[in-house]
Amino acid sequence: MRYEELTIEGRNAVLEAFRSGKTIDKVFIQDGCHDGPVQTIAREARKQDTIITYVPKERLDQMSRTGKHQGVIAQGAVYHYAQVEDILEAAREKGEPPFIFLLDGIEDPHNLGAIIRTANLAGAHGVIIPKRRAAGLTAVVAKASAGAIYHTPVAKVNNIKTVMEELKKEGLWFACADMDGQVMYDLDLTGPIGLVIGNEGNGVSRLVKETCDMTASIPMKGDIDSLNASVAAGVLAYEVVRQRMKAGAGRRN
Amino acid sequence: MRYEELTIEGRNAVLEAFRSGKTIDKVFIQDGCHDGPVQTIAREARKQDTIITYVPKERLDQMSRTGKHQGVIAQGAVYHYAQVEDILEAAREKGEPPFIFLLDGIEDPHNLGAIIRTANLAGAHGVIIPKRRAAGLTAVVAKASAGAIYHTPVAKVNNIKTVMEELKKEGLWFACADMDGQVMYDLDLTGPIGLVIGNEGNGVSRLVKETCDMTASIPMKGDIDSLNASVAAGVLAYEVVRQRMKAGAGRRN
Repeated sequence: MRYEELTIEGRNAVLEAFRSGKTIDKVFIQDGCHDGPVQTIAREARKQDTIITYVPKERLDQMSRTGKHQGVIAQGAVYHYAQVEDILEAAREKGEPPFIFLLDGIEDPHNLGAIIRTANLAGAHGVIIPKRRAAGLTAVVAKASAGAIYHTPVAKVNNIKTVMEELKKEGLWFACADMDGQVMYDLDLTGPIGLVIGNEGNGVSRLVKETCDMTASIPMKGDIDSLNASVAAGVLAYEVVRQRMKAGAGRRN
Repeated sequence: MRYEELTIEGRNAVLEAFRSGKTIDKVFIQDGCHDGPVQTIAREARKQDTIITYVPKERLDQMSRTGKHQGVIAQGAVYHYAQVEDILEAAREKGEPPFIFLLDGIEDPHNLGAIIRTANLAGAHGVIIPKRRAAGLTAVVAKASAGAIYHTPVAKVNNIKTVMEELKKEGLWFACADMDGQVMYDLDLTGPIGLVIGNEGNGVSRLVKETCDMTASIPMKGDIDSLNASVAAGVLAYEVVRQRMKAGAGRRN
């Protein structure tokens, strides 16, 4: 995972950066600045989970490279995505059947980070996310991933379904997590596999679900509807780990 | 789960409520109020993940019951905890061996909520949390639990270790999640069991770990250290579910 640091100075530049969807991790605002534009920046920052720090003017003067900070300096990062091919290559290098997570519209950056963390520890070779209506890589995600985004490749694609069809040609099978499926313990998850995790509120979208080969259900014994998306991803991923360990032990015997 | 709504008006009362550790979910502040006391309240609110909404004076006047809001109204809830005995009783009522989560210092309210949600869906009978250095029940936890806190009893105890010793007399076995343990697939988790989940940063504390009968490790195949606490709780809880389903099927055959 490559990423570049980004510093933006001045009210209009910072506001424009927020509005154009750039990833701003921190905003430094001059103590006592509460006028309209600064309040608008603070509001945008809160919306996007950006940390706001109020600092004396002298601190901003020190940080500034342009000398024209106007009481506001923002810091962010530009994260670079991997290609789907990089993920398959990672599996080949390890001599393992591909094990990929496909996230069909995870919106919460903490969930995205936790899932990338799980993917790393469950030994998956990469994570595929869609370009639209989904969280992308940001500092919040990097932190929630406990640094896993620097190890596990994350590819961003236009269309999850199209990518699934291409990966089927490479021999992958797809299992989506959904309540109306077969209990996951009864499915064979040992081959080359893509686990499809749906959106927090709506689950897996119809077209993606239709493209899946299996629907895996996690047994639900309680009073409420569904697990947190990152917990569901973890439970399902570790069923893959368990089955693969058992199959590996079987082959060794 | 019983809870009561709470409304607090006036600067000192709201600040005092924050400082005494009351659960404040929302603070309404009058537009344009930026003086010292209001800024202190806003700072406390941000520290505690409380939502701040800036509203016109007229709105506060409407909301106020005392007529003396001084530009600040806070809303919260008082959640009532269960007793450990209630959790054992829930297991007895269902005719199941007790299955309890013990959280040894979970600090993040989103993790706490996600774990209560998992406990509910994995069929656990309750969750035990410590009084100190841990997240308690708040509106953030209620939301993250997807409502599970209204179904699954949560008990708050002075000392996790003491409670474990009492529960051992009731026949419970304790398994903590830790990396240096036996792979969880090789442990027998089918009896009356308490799953101990450690703090996000430091894991399970020494005294609690020494009181456990088993240390269960989740296989880690990646580059980083550990799963998110709520994901780890989910993966371990579902290993209990899998083993119990298998044992149940075995008994039926």
